[in-house]
Amino acid sequence: MSTANGDAKHSRSPSVVYSEVQSSRLKTSLPLPSVLKSSFQVVDGPKSSASGNPDQIAKLFPNLFGQPSVSLKSGGSLPEKSLKIGVVLSGGQAPGGHNVISGIFDYLQTRAHGSTMYGFKGGPAGIMKCKYVKLNGDIVYHYRNQGGFDMICSGRDKIETPEQFKEAQETVKKLDLDGLVVIGGDDSNTNACLLAENFRANNLKTRVIGCPKTIDGDLKCKEVPTSFGFDTACKIYSEMIGNLMVDARSTGKYYHFVRLMGRAASHITLECALQTHPNIAIIGEEVAAQKQTLKSVTDYITNIICKRAVAGFNYGIILIPEGLIDFIPEVQSLIGELNEIIAHGTIDKEGTWKKKLRSQSHELFEILPKTIQEQLLLERDPHGNVQVAKIETEKMLIQMVETELENRKKEGKYQKDFKGQPHFFGYEGRCGLPSKFDSNYCYALGHCAAALLHSGKTGLISSVGNLGAPVENWTIGGTTLTSLMDVERRHGKFKPVIKKAMVELEGAPFKKFASMRGDWSLKNRYINPGPVQFVGPSADILNHTLRLELGAKAGG
Amino acid sequence: MSTANGDAKHSRSPSVVYSEVQSSRLKTSLPLPSVLKSSFQVVDGPKSSASGNPDQIAKLFPNLFGQPSVSLKSGGSLPEKSLKIGVVLSGGQAPGGHNVISGIFDYLQTRAHGSTMYGFKGGPAGIMKCKYVKLNGDIVYHYRNQGGFDMICSGRDKIETPEQFKEAQETVKKLDLDGLVVIGGDDSNTNACLLAENFRANNLKTRVIGCPKTIDGDLKCKEVPTSFGFDTACKIYSEMIGNLMVDARSTGKYYHFVRLMGRAASHITLECALQTHPNIAIIGEEVAAQKQTLKSVTDYITNIICKRAVAGFNYGIILIPEGLIDFIPEVQSLIGELNEIIAHGTIDKEGTWKKKLRSQSHELFEILPKTIQEQLLLERDPHGNVQVAKIETEKMLIQMVETELENRKKEGKYQKDFKGQPHFFGYEGRCGLPSKFDSNYCYALGHCAAALLHSGKTGLISSVGNLGAPVENWTIGGTTLTSLMDVERRHGKFKPVIKKAMVELEGAPFKKFASMRGDWSLKNRYINPGPVQFVGPSADILNHTLRLELGAKAGG
Repeated sequence: MSTANGDAKHSRSPSVVYSEVQSSRLKTSLPLPSVLKSSFQVVDGPKSSASGNPDQIAKLFPNLFGQPSVSLKSGGSLPEKSLKIGVVLSGGQAPGGHNVISGIFDYLQTRAHGSTMYGFKGGPAGIMKCKYVKLNGDIVYHYRNQGGFDMICSGRDKIETPEQFKEAQETVKKLDLDGLVVIGGDDSNTNACLLAENFRANNLKTRVIGCPKTIDGDLKCKEVPTSFGFDTACKIYSEMIGNLMVDARSTGKYYHFVRLMGRAASHITLECALQTHPNIAIIGEEVAAQKQTLKSVTDYITNIICKRAVAGFNYGIILIPEGLIDFIPEVQSLIGELNEIIAHGTIDKEGTWKKKLRSQSHELFEILPKTIQEQLLLERDPHGNVQVAKIETEKMLIQMVETELENRKKEGKYQKDFKGQPHFFGYEGRCGLPSKFDSNYCYALGHCAAALLHSGKTGLISSVGNLGAPVENWTIGGTTLTSLMDVERRHGKFKPVIKKAMVELEGAPFKKFASMRGDWSLKNRYINPGPVQFVGPSADILNHTLRLELGAKAGG
Repeated sequence: MSTANGDAKHSRSPSVVYSEVQSSRLKTSLPLPSVLKSSFQVVDGPKSSASGNPDQIAKLFPNLFGQPSVSLKSGGSLPEKSLKIGVVLSGGQAPGGHNVISGIFDYLQTRAHGSTMYGFKGGPAGIMKCKYVKLNGDIVYHYRNQGGFDMICSGRDKIETPEQFKEAQETVKKLDLDGLVVIGGDDSNTNACLLAENFRANNLKTRVIGCPKTIDGDLKCKEVPTSFGFDTACKIYSEMIGNLMVDARSTGKYYHFVRLMGRAASHITLECALQTHPNIAIIGEEVAAQKQTLKSVTDYITNIICKRAVAGFNYGIILIPEGLIDFIPEVQSLIGELNEIIAHGTIDKEGTWKKKLRSQSHELFEILPKTIQEQLLLERDPHGNVQVAKIETEKMLIQMVETELENRKKEGKYQKDFKGQPHFFGYEGRCGLPSKFDSNYCYALGHCAAALLHSGKTGLISSVGNLGAPVENWTIGGTTLTSLMDVERRHGKFKPVIKKAMVELEGAPFKKFASMRGDWSLKNRYINPGPVQFVGPSADILNHTLRLELGAKAGG
C-alpha cells in the first residue's frame, strides 16, 4: 500500500480476512449508466438562481452565482489529459462512501490516463493539515462495495476561518490539485461551495464538486433525488424492526419502543414505517406542525394501546425519531429556562427553584419521569448546558405511557399489564454493507463527480437522476450548489446554508403513511423485510420514500 | 382457516402481505435427509442409562428408564395408519420453530394419510386448558421458513402438579392423541419426559417426543449436536456486531460494549466472537472457573484499552454475555446480603446499613457505579428482592472502566478520551427469518419426531446428526430423554433435570477463541459477516461452534 506521509496507517490490507458475503460483494462488478459507457459531452442548462434570498447568495458567491447546472449527453468528447484529484469524506458514515471513491478512481483510470488521486485523511482536517494518502488500485480495490468510511476515515471539522481557508489553499497548491470531491451532508456541501468560491476568487485552478451523503435522507432536491446511505440504513433498521414485530406477535406481551437515528428530520422513521407497518410511528415534522406537546404525544400512544387492549392485543411496535423532543416547542422552552436557572442560581432540594419556571414549563417538568428530571438537572455539557442529546427518548416515553396507563387503570379504563421494551438502532445501520442500490448509486455519483471535474466544472453537486429506471438509463449531471442555497442570520451575519429537506406533510411518502396508519394501529399489518439480500429479485427493491417521491408505485 | 375452539385467533392469513424475502423463503422447498425419502425402519440401540445418578432417575422414570435410543435405517416399513398428533411450542422463541411443525405436518401428509394434527396454543397452558387449533395445509403453509412462534404462540407455564398432569391427561384423552411433540429447551424436554412417563404409567396411548430448541445453544449433547435457533440468532447478532466494528474503525473514537442474549451460558457470545473477532469477549464460564471478581473483569478490559491506546487505537468492540454477573460469586454474595438486609431493616441515607455487609461485599458495593447502587437498592421484584436481571451489565462495565481509566489518567498511564457506547442485542435475533441451516435442520427435526411417534416411540428427543455433511447424509434418530438426565435436590426432593450444556473451557470452540484473542485484542482482525443470505454459497455457511464441535475445519 502506498502512503504519502509518515503516519499513514491502514486498517484494511490484502491480508485482512473478509467474510464470505464481503468477499462476494468485493468481486461483484458495478453497472454504469449508458451515458458513461462511451463518449459524452457536458451540456450547460439555463442560468441558475438560489433557493432563497438570491441577492445575498449572489453577494456571498460572486464568482459562482448564476452559473448553469449541467448534464451529460452522449457524443462529443472531453480533452485528453491527466488530472490530480483529491477526495474527502466529511461527517458521519453512510454505506456507499467507498464506492464514490471507487467511481472517481475508475473514471480516472479509464478516461484520464496518468491521473493521480489523493484521499484526505480524517475529513476536512486532512485538507487543512495536508494529511493524505495517495490512492492506487491496490488500496481502492479492497473497499469496493464495502461499508464504513475506513479507507481514509472521516471527520467533523469545518473549514471556516480565513486561516483555515488559507491552509486549504496551501494544500491544493502543494498537491497541484485540478479538483477536489467533497463527500458529505448539507453542511459539508455548503462548505464545498465556499471552497469552490474561495479557490476561484484566488485564481487557483482547483475545482470543487460535492456528493450527497447522509443516512438521514435530509439532503435532497429535484435534481438530487436522494442522499446515499439512506437506502441501506433504513433496510438494516427495518430488518430489526420486522424481527421485533414477529417477536411482539409471538409473545403477545411487549410493546417495543424503537428509537431510530435521524436527529433533524424524520425520514428514517417514515421510511422504516413504510417498510414494516408499525402500530405507531411518530413523525417529528408533524408533531411540530401541529404544535403537539409531550403530553399529547403520550396520550396519542396511550389511546392506541388502550384501544388495542380492547381488541385483544397487548403488544405492539412504536417507532420514534431520535430528534423527537427537538420538535416539541414546550420542551425547547423548558430546556432554555433550565439552562438560565442553572447558570444564575442553584437547584435546591426543596424545589423552590421551580418557581422561576414559567407555568407551562413547570407543568411539563412535573409530568416528566423522575429519571429524566434528574438527567436534565444533573448531566451538563462542558458549557454547563442541559444535554438533550443524552435523553433516551424511547425510555422517557415508556415511563410516561406507563404512568398514564396506571391512571387509566385506576379509572377502570385499562386492564392489562404494560411492558415496554426500549431499543435504539443507530450505529448498526450507518456502517452496513451498502445495498445493491447504494452500491450502484455511489459508483455512478463518483463517476459523475470525476466527469464534472474533467470538464472543468466547479461548485456543483454530483447529480444522478431517473433512479426508478434500470441503472443504464440513469441520468448524469451536476447541479449548482448555489441554487440549493438560502441564507440564515447567525451572529449578525448572513451565512449561506443548504436547507435540510424535512419530511413534507404534503409529500407522497407521508401521505401514504397517513392514509394507512389508522389501519396499522389497530390491526397488525406487520411486514418483516428480512435481511438485505445481494442476489436475486429482492436485491433490487428500492426504498419506499424514493419510489413514492419519484411517483412510482410502491409495493407493500 | 380452521379453528377448533371459540377464541382461536390467527395473526397470519392468506391476506397478510409478505415482504419479497419472506415470500421467496415461503416458496423455497426444503431438502430431506435421504433416509426420510423412501421406506425406513426404526432400529433400537443398546439399553440406556442416565447422565448422572442412574438409580434416582430409574426411580423417577420406572416405565421409561433404560429404554434404548433408536435410529432410522433405510428399508423395512412402518404400519399404515393415521395418527392424531399434538404439538406445543414452549418457552422463548427461536428461529425455525415453524419448520419443525411443517416437518411433522408434511410427514403425516405423506406417510400417515388421514392423520390429524393439533397445535396447542400459548405453550403448555394450551395443553392443560385444552386450547388448540386444528392445523391444516392452509395454515401451515403460511409459516414455512418464517421466523417467530406466532402460528400457535408459546408460553412459559410448566406442567408440574398432580392436578396439572391430570389436566394434560384429560386433554390427550379428549383429543384421542397418539402422540405429542414438545418443542422446547432443557426444562421443557424434562417436562416432556415426565409427561411421557405419566401417560405410560396411566396406560394412555399418547406418546411424547421432544425437540431441542433454544437460541442460547445450551441444550446439546453427542446425539443432539445443536439446538435450533442458535445458528440464526448468532448470525443476526454478528451482522450487527460486524457493522459496529466498521463503525469503530471508521470513527476511531468509540468503544462499543455489546451485551448479548444468553443468561445461563455464554455460547452466543463465544460464537459471535468466532464470527467477528472482537477485541474482547468475556465468557462467563471462564470468569466463574477463574473465580474472577467484577474488579478483575474491569481491570482486564481496562488493561487492553490502555495497551490499545499505546498502539494508536482509541476504539474497540467488547462482547459481554447477558448473564455475566451471575457468573461472579462475589456479586451473588452481595445480592444475597442485600436481600437479607432489605427484608429485615431499612436502608438509611447515612449508610449505617452498610456495616451489616461482609467486608468483601462492602468493598464491592463501594466500587459499583452510583446508578447501579441505586438500582440495587430501589428496584425490587414483587417479593422484595433485588432485580439482577434489570441491571444493564454493559452500562455498568462502561462506568466502571471509565472510573478506572480516570484513575490511570491521574497516574499518567492513560492519555486518551474514552467513549463507551452501550448496545443490547436480544429480541432482534430470536425472531429473525431462520437461516438456511435452521430451516433445513428444523424441517428434519419435525419429520424425525413424527417418524418416532409413527413407530410408537416415547420419551425420546428428536435427534438429527452428521450435520457437517450435506442434508441428504444427515442421520435421523431418537435419544432417550432419561439418558440426558441427572437429579438436583430441590426443597428436599430429587428433581430430574437435563443439565444445561455450558461453554466447555476444554472444548474446541473456546480453545480456538483462546488461541486467537490475544491477537484480536491489540490488532484489529475484525470480520463483518454481513446480513444473512438465503441464496448463493454464503447461505450455506454453518456456525463456528457447531463446525468446531463436529471437528470440521472452521473458516475465518
